[in-house]
Amino acid sequence: MILAFDFGGTKNTCAAFTRNDAGAYQLVALERRASPPRADGAYDYAVMRDLARGLLQGKTPSAIGVSFGGLVRASQGLVVLSHHVAGWENIFLRDRLAAEFQTRVELDNDANVAALGEARFGAGRDCANLLYITVSTGVGGGWILDGKPYRGANELAGEIGHTVIDPHGPPCMCGRRGCVEQMASGRAIARMARQALERDPRRGEILRARIDNDLTRLTGLVVHQADLAGDALARELMTHAARSLGFAIGNMLCLMNPARVILGGGVTHAGEHYFENVRAAARANVIPELRDAVDVQPAQLGDDAPLWGACALVI
Amino acid sequence: MILAFDFGGTKNTCAAFTRNDAGAYQLVALERRASPPRADGAYDYAVMRDLARGLLQGKTPSAIGVSFGGLVRASQGLVVLSHHVAGWENIFLRDRLAAEFQTRVELDNDANVAALGEARFGAGRDCANLLYITVSTGVGGGWILDGKPYRGANELAGEIGHTVIDPHGPPCMCGRRGCVEQMASGRAIARMARQALERDPRRGEILRARIDNDLTRLTGLVVHQADLAGDALARELMTHAARSLGFAIGNMLCLMNPARVILGGGVTHAGEHYFENVRAAARANVIPELRDAVDVQPAQLGDDAPLWGACALVI
Repeated sequence: MILAFDFGGTKNTCAAFTRNDAGAYQLVALERRASPPRADGAYDYAVMRDLARGLLQGKTPSAIGVSFGGLVRASQGLVVLSHHVAGWENIFLRDRLAAEFQTRVELDNDANVAALGEARFGAGRDCANLLYITVSTGVGGGWILDGKPYRGANELAGEIGHTVIDPHGPPCMCGRRGCVEQMASGRAIARMARQALERDPRRGEILRARIDNDLTRLTGLVVHQADLAGDALARELMTHAARSLGFAIGNMLCLMNPARVILGGGVTHAGEHYFENVRAAARANVIPELRDAVDVQPAQLGDDAPLWGACALVI
Repeated sequence: MILAFDFGGTKNTCAAFTRNDAGAYQLVALERRASPPRADGAYDYAVMRDLARGLLQGKTPSAIGVSFGGLVRASQGLVVLSHHVAGWENIFLRDRLAAEFQTRVELDNDANVAALGEARFGAGRDCANLLYITVSTGVGGGWILDGKPYRGANELAGEIGHTVIDPHGPPCMCGRRGCVEQMASGRAIARMARQALERDPRRGEILRARIDNDLTRLTGLVVHQADLAGDALARELMTHAARSLGFAIGNMLCLMNPARVILGGGVTHAGEHYFENVRAAARANVIPELRDAVDVQPAQLGDDAPLWGACALVI
């Protein structure tokens, strides 16, 4: 039995995988706990340990793969910090779990792990080289090159959300302007919606109704739902976000020529027109020789991608 | 004896490498021929064959590595086209040379080969992951990842010159706008110089003197020389080109986090202030975690990089 841990910031998930008679891996059990608002690293760790013990029922796992939503040094098994939760600074999580459960443990950040999950079990099974991009509150990414996670010299590769596509664009927390994250993330879509609704009080009727005209309630999800419900302004905003992402993908294709780009995360559930806009913008921003090779696909593993990827980490 | 062929468009070079008693490779002989204006593929091939026969003196080489200035499918040993010379369309050069010289042959494009040369023998000897960028008439690039050339799904990775850094920038032959090549190449520097001199007849005194005020004689090299001679306009143009390149490098560092970026090609001979501007712009365009890791170095092998790289291809 392989255990997979997903430290997700707002929730922690533990899953158990076994192989069936044909040798295929199967997710046979899953436990998930939402975190209370002021949970810290110690809380997360204790919850995960208890979930794992519940699934193990006294048995020892053959290995544990761990996905962590934060800055990680995979080669050292080190959590540098969490994007969401205090108390995770410089924790050697791999060794701690290995001692706790007396088994082999591998650890990586959630984007790299999801990339590996999609490559082994999801939308990238036939690709040696792929780029996985998660578009949710923020924008992250992970590379699989020659079938393996590619992490880079400082294990910081894949910071797609902080490549700049418009030097005069909106300011980013990283200190620069026009990062992909400021143009295409759920948070960016909510910001653009607020600005558009403030600018023109006659627009966005359906969108306004969904938030009772309370602009503090705007989220990427609300805009996406208003788009699907026929709101023209919401459609414009989703199209703009998709085209910004597609433009950035075009540059990445020129630079790295992966076989496929796989998109996961909440924003990418916006439907086929979202994907068509991403693809069109990517095709418009590659060299002619790559135009017919643009292959942008939705992730297949959904919320379980980190779990499948964590399993793949230790296979 | 290993032979290295460099089909360079305007010149063809053949070199012989042997190992010394300590096992180190040494370039022991080199023959170079400039091509006449209307040379074609058959001419290039015949010249290279004769240069090689002259170096071999009847012996058989243990292998031949080939650098080609054009679009190449390395896995098939296929030259798709030359950037400069007619008659190179869809030539299976690897197999042809293997039959001609009765030995093993490997082939790749000049940027990938130069990247490999710098990685094995030059400025990247201590780096598993590096990006090599050649900045001359155009801008090309090659990746070494985990010590090996990384070519991508369609063997088109490294098209750094055609990543877009300003969607509203000058038009490019590839059909888009604001490609790195239109902002940082020798041709771009010459174009920007012409525009600046036309706009303001009082500027660029030293630069104008070098071309007898004949703007058709502007080249990147002339601008670079005027910069070194103290021309303020030429300095501005070189700084702008360096900063455009550095901005693009920042994005690449966020995306791929190579240990080092190595710059070769004529424009990069512009001196230390050119490199300082590239580095400053790259540092200003990376996430804070990467700022101290920006490492941009001049190539060490100069014009011989394709030859050393071709040698490395077959080692």
